[in-house]
Amino acid sequence: METNIIYLPIIMAIIGLIFMVVKAGWVKKQPAGSDKMQSISKSIKEGALAFLNAEYRLLFIFVIIASVALFGISVLVPTTSWMIVPAFIFGAFFSALAGNIGMRIATEANARTSEAAKTSLPQALKVSFSGGTVMGLGVAGLAVLGLSLWFLFFIGQFVGSSADFYSDMTIVLEALAGFSLGAESIALFARVGGGIYTKAADVGADLVGKVEAGIPEDDPRNPATIADNVGDNVGDVAGMGADLFGSYVATVLAAMVLGNYIIRDMSVDTPFVDAFNNMGPILLPLVIAGVGILASIIGTFLVRISSNDAREAQVQRALDTGNWVAIGLTLLSSYFLIQYMLPEMMYMNLFGRSEAVAVPSINVFWAACIGLAVGALISYVTAYYTSLGKKPVMDIVQNSSTGAATNIIAGLAVGMKSTFWSVLLFAVAIYGSYELAGFYGVALAASAMMATTAMQLAIDAFGPIADNAGGVAEMSELEPQVRERTDILDSVGNTTAAVGKGFAIASAALTALALFAAYVTFTGIDGINIFKADVLATLFVGAMIPVVFSALAMKSVGKAAMEMVQEVRRQFREIPGILEGTGTPEYGKCVEISTKAALKEMLLPGLLTIITPIIIGLLLGAEPLGGYMAGVCVSGVMWAIFQNNAGGAWDNAKKSFEAGVEIDGEMTYKGSPAHKAAVTGDTVGDPFKDTSGPSMNILIKLTCLVGLVIAPILGGHHNDSAEVVDHNQQQKVISVTLASEKDGQTTATIKTLEVQSGKEIASESIIGGTSEEIQQTIEKVKGTIE
Amino acid sequence: METNIIYLPIIMAIIGLIFMVVKAGWVKKQPAGSDKMQSISKSIKEGALAFLNAEYRLLFIFVIIASVALFGISVLVPTTSWMIVPAFIFGAFFSALAGNIGMRIATEANARTSEAAKTSLPQALKVSFSGGTVMGLGVAGLAVLGLSLWFLFFIGQFVGSSADFYSDMTIVLEALAGFSLGAESIALFARVGGGIYTKAADVGADLVGKVEAGIPEDDPRNPATIADNVGDNVGDVAGMGADLFGSYVATVLAAMVLGNYIIRDMSVDTPFVDAFNNMGPILLPLVIAGVGILASIIGTFLVRISSNDAREAQVQRALDTGNWVAIGLTLLSSYFLIQYMLPEMMYMNLFGRSEAVAVPSINVFWAACIGLAVGALISYVTAYYTSLGKKPVMDIVQNSSTGAATNIIAGLAVGMKSTFWSVLLFAVAIYGSYELAGFYGVALAASAMMATTAMQLAIDAFGPIADNAGGVAEMSELEPQVRERTDILDSVGNTTAAVGKGFAIASAALTALALFAAYVTFTGIDGINIFKADVLATLFVGAMIPVVFSALAMKSVGKAAMEMVQEVRRQFREIPGILEGTGTPEYGKCVEISTKAALKEMLLPGLLTIITPIIIGLLLGAEPLGGYMAGVCVSGVMWAIFQNNAGGAWDNAKKSFEAGVEIDGEMTYKGSPAHKAAVTGDTVGDPFKDTSGPSMNILIKLTCLVGLVIAPILGGHHNDSAEVVDHNQQQKVISVTLASEKDGQTTATIKTLEVQSGKEIASESIIGGTSEEIQQTIEKVKGTIE
Repeated sequence: METNIIYLPIIMAIIGLIFMVVKAGWVKKQPAGSDKMQSISKSIKEGALAFLNAEYRLLFIFVIIASVALFGISVLVPTTSWMIVPAFIFGAFFSALAGNIGMRIATEANARTSEAAKTSLPQALKVSFSGGTVMGLGVAGLAVLGLSLWFLFFIGQFVGSSADFYSDMTIVLEALAGFSLGAESIALFARVGGGIYTKAADVGADLVGKVEAGIPEDDPRNPATIADNVGDNVGDVAGMGADLFGSYVATVLAAMVLGNYIIRDMSVDTPFVDAFNNMGPILLPLVIAGVGILASIIGTFLVRISSNDAREAQVQRALDTGNWVAIGLTLLSSYFLIQYMLPEMMYMNLFGRSEAVAVPSINVFWAACIGLAVGALISYVTAYYTSLGKKPVMDIVQNSSTGAATNIIAGLAVGMKSTFWSVLLFAVAIYGSYELAGFYGVALAASAMMATTAMQLAIDAFGPIADNAGGVAEMSELEPQVRERTDILDSVGNTTAAVGKGFAIASAALTALALFAAYVTFTGIDGINIFKADVLATLFVGAMIPVVFSALAMKSVGKAAMEMVQEVRRQFREIPGILEGTGTPEYGKCVEISTKAALKEMLLPGLLTIITPIIIGLLLGAEPLGGYMAGVCVSGVMWAIFQNNAGGAWDNAKKSFEAGVEIDGEMTYKGSPAHKAAVTGDTVGDPFKDTSGPSMNILIKLTCLVGLVIAPILGGHHNDSAEVVDHNQQQKVISVTLASEKDGQTTATIKTLEVQSGKEIASESIIGGTSEEIQQTIEKVKGTIE
Repeated sequence: METNIIYLPIIMAIIGLIFMVVKAGWVKKQPAGSDKMQSISKSIKEGALAFLNAEYRLLFIFVIIASVALFGISVLVPTTSWMIVPAFIFGAFFSALAGNIGMRIATEANARTSEAAKTSLPQALKVSFSGGTVMGLGVAGLAVLGLSLWFLFFIGQFVGSSADFYSDMTIVLEALAGFSLGAESIALFARVGGGIYTKAADVGADLVGKVEAGIPEDDPRNPATIADNVGDNVGDVAGMGADLFGSYVATVLAAMVLGNYIIRDMSVDTPFVDAFNNMGPILLPLVIAGVGILASIIGTFLVRISSNDAREAQVQRALDTGNWVAIGLTLLSSYFLIQYMLPEMMYMNLFGRSEAVAVPSINVFWAACIGLAVGALISYVTAYYTSLGKKPVMDIVQNSSTGAATNIIAGLAVGMKSTFWSVLLFAVAIYGSYELAGFYGVALAASAMMATTAMQLAIDAFGPIADNAGGVAEMSELEPQVRERTDILDSVGNTTAAVGKGFAIASAALTALALFAAYVTFTGIDGINIFKADVLATLFVGAMIPVVFSALAMKSVGKAAMEMVQEVRRQFREIPGILEGTGTPEYGKCVEISTKAALKEMLLPGLLTIITPIIIGLLLGAEPLGGYMAGVCVSGVMWAIFQNNAGGAWDNAKKSFEAGVEIDGEMTYKGSPAHKAAVTGDTVGDPFKDTSGPSMNILIKLTCLVGLVIAPILGGHHNDSAEVVDHNQQQKVISVTLASEKDGQTTATIKTLEVQSGKEIASESIIGGTSEEIQQTIEKVKGTIE
């Protein structure tokens, strides 16, 4: 059993994918409604597929260029295999596939949800949530399957090629990083492109349709209405699917890389041995991910309501039940898996500690618990700042009475304030999980948050499906009861989306830190010291990137929305009878505008993200790149929380007026000046929460992944250990790192380890001189200590 | 001459203060206009003084509490003298005094400027700029005088008390840090309080007056109009005066502290000796500051126009001439002073380098040039993003045509995008000045930017005076020509204010870095390594503080503005004939509301800034506090640039409509829907650019100053050199730093320096064990090497 445990996640992934196919078949068997409904649904599907296909054509070019670059790296660097290239391509392909599966099922499920809503609310929930489940299992199944198969394949290729297990495994994981890089790159473009698409269509449709022509949302007379519904699918569904696929893979990968360092640290005197082919710490995150799929499947069975009179609270409770059961089962299994797969006592070389620290394996479980607890608390904070009826949203509502300006100020302030508890909790998660089990603990905390991705995504994806179902109902002019039922689902979907974002940010940031730790260890640099001017300078540059990225994304939405506005105005002007419902709008034109704009505009922010770290790494070296990565993470987390929460709060402030709110003792409703101010706030919040905000996650992870992949080629800070370090066991010199030559002077750092009266003493010397002098000194040091 | 050079800055400061008194006398001798004008001016002055007095009462309590805390520190820590307490009190007092002087002259100059504008534009410029000059010289004169006198006094007290000049000087500079801390604390409260006051009054007056009642700006029927004008003085004048006073002192102090490190680094074998009582590098920044005052005075003579038909461009050119002459003169003098006062070749121990680096003194001059060049370029970038007619502002204008939402999105994007070049330039400044002359170079780059503070402030302060003069003209119903002339001055003032902000941010950030460097060196920690989990966690917490601070400041403005709105509405309702001009509004009530709200609301953000670093330092130690400081700096710089530039761009987008702009081929003017959207954007931008944005400067500097002052009490990382290091010259062990005990284990870092074949080899060992074991190891190391 033990030696074959790598097959466990593969089996779980396959079970997940089979269950997905079954669920998808069930959804497709549901009645799809009237011809009109089917035709609308078909238009949406075709528009979405047209966008995805255009996007794939563009990304195909990107993948080819990136593959060539990666191949170049693999030629230059001995520790990087050329197999990083196929892994990268597969990562990109799987990511796109995951988004595609989700998008297809979502466009199948929308009309079927409206049709089911004719019968009952429980049935509508069942159909829409099944759609979400298909997507969740697709993402999780493909991620675990892809990672496991490539890992298995690479192990066969590389492990055992030299006597040093750790070095072989480093090559394996470096190649596997290619899979993650591929996934995350596609995720970035999908998220940004989808985000621009959906908001351009949404804002464009609203500005001319609702505001200028005075027709309701999703009205078939609005030429941009199909584009708007397509946008929900390519942005909220396909974009999110690719995003979470990337996150999931990156989190598991980071934990695996850090697991390998445990093996290294425990192989000082004798090689590390365990029952799991000597790689328990590396396999653990994969196995937990596999178990998470099973737990998620079980959880999905619990998401159901029985009463047709159920309201938001009951639907929410059903989702919560499923979610928490999935989390609970995963955590319980993790407890046993950790005990089973990790050595009872692990030894880790924590940075800045003189000796290897003994860490009981149970600490890893506690780190995972911290991850989950903090994730849940951050979600709670997110929900507080963005929920209907809570103080922050009510505050924005109150401030709407004096106009759009005060509404905007209040919303910005809510978003900014919400960073306080989120960041404090996050700091506690870093500190706590690190204290428990080093960066492996941090990575496992992130893994715990991501383990039930299948369930999380099912919950996240059912919202847009219900939203679309409402659109189909409106456009097909179904009875109001149908819209009411889909609205209940949509409203719950909004809340769960906000909560999901809290988890996503927290896990992305922890993953980025784990990748960051992997990067530092991998490059062999001595930490990231911001007391060096170049590191400090790149820390600032890194912190600027998320800000500029957000600006680019927002501007893109603005530009694309303007084009949409012009087109809708043109159609209203030129097509006779369009507003009376006798002329047919040219929906396709609007779809085309959104498609073109999104593809054009996603390139600059995407390339900025990928190319900047490469330039900094090549120009300045490994430690400044580390500073850059830290800057991107720190600033990215702030801007993600700020933008997501401000956007969510504005949205719900606007929604508050639908049921009516009391302002200065008077009930105020839709259509009032205060409501108009709130609509303005919501429009500002749209690109915040659906375009730039969610991209921050990917931005920070992708930055760290790019760093990790290019780490071996960074000049000036390479480990020159082969040359001067003798690997026999008496040897006390751990490593010699040569720093860059400057003014004819070479500097080297010598790390030594000495055992004195049972205590290990680590020491580090920086020496300078010509290379000959350094060579002499090294010999002398070795002589002295031996 | 050389030994008495400390008297040079004192003389310059006194010359500056005498010139200030003469100028102030001249302003007061100018005709003050009609009784009505004098009465309005008097009301403004009384309101402003009432606010300042109330503020001082509150700050008096703060100063007492802080003094007790500082006294406590001085008792606990041997390197901190109790004299830090009087220095702190004087710093606070001088800062308040500087703001007060500026505010008094500004309220004298406003009506006199309107009166002068009756005659001619050149005369109006002369009066308003003279007012500004008084303020500029007051701030610079008091800063240089205060610093020099305390420095002189402390030298008499402490230098020579032990054989070690460097240690004595450390005590001097630590005590002098108290002066800077006092100045910066008051600056924070003055800036935040003033910022809240002015925007609450402004927004409140506009929302009810302009929007609801439809009466123009500065109309005497508006009860909030006096409060609005008072706000200009307490915020833009007194607040800014205290702010720049604090910046100036902090910059010079940081450079002095880093100068002391040069002396230490050059005293390894024999004590450092020069003609300036052996403290040339410490005195240099003070002397440059003194020379800057003289250069500024000369520059002010060049600010004049002759033609009464001059427009903005001519006024701008006059200001530019004066400014650049002052800068040129200071730079020229610096060139000679640097050659004169610094040893031709300096040796600095740069972090991460094995040997002391030889730095020719001329490098310091080049670092100063980099500082000025980058400061000028950042100002240029700022001007580009915020100026009338340039692409970013025009973009906001175009986006106003589709409503407030698109205007806001465009404005936010402009602010965010503007971080790109500013931060890149800033990174170049850090890297370049550091490469040239280490952190001393960074500090001198900042000093060069701040050297002409007197002139900068004169230019900055004349704007609000002209703005107020326009208000007085409007309220006294003077002929339109007067308002036109003051409007020209006001408009130029807006541009110079934006440019000045670019300089202020850049210099504040560089100063913060210099303080940060001083902190790291002072605590004796081995850099700030963000690869340690606790440092990483505090980096995130630090980055969150500017965001939350900004939110608090913005919310405060919102709350106070709401109270103002209620009061103005009440007066319109209850006072008969008020809108017809027959009833008299109760101006005092509005002044009182702004005063109370500002004082109440400034406390939380102020205390957050001061207390958080203390908590982090005491709980987690020196290195995590360093991470926190870095986080505050990095994030603070982004949010400062973002908020200032977005606010400035919105303001000018709104102003664009006054002359008319072409949107979609149609000329659009004031009163159009697009203009209304632009007004909304401007209202959002108001707290950005006048409350939270400018506070970021102070926030980052104050955080670093608090860190520097509490550095000696941070447990766990103190230099235990007295115990184990033998200071004779054969001694090769440089220092032993004991880190905190943990689980009965003590860790110590031993730094050694060894000369081998003519090369110095610095090495550093981290050892762990019980204290006895460590003692043994230390003895052994000493034995081995000697």
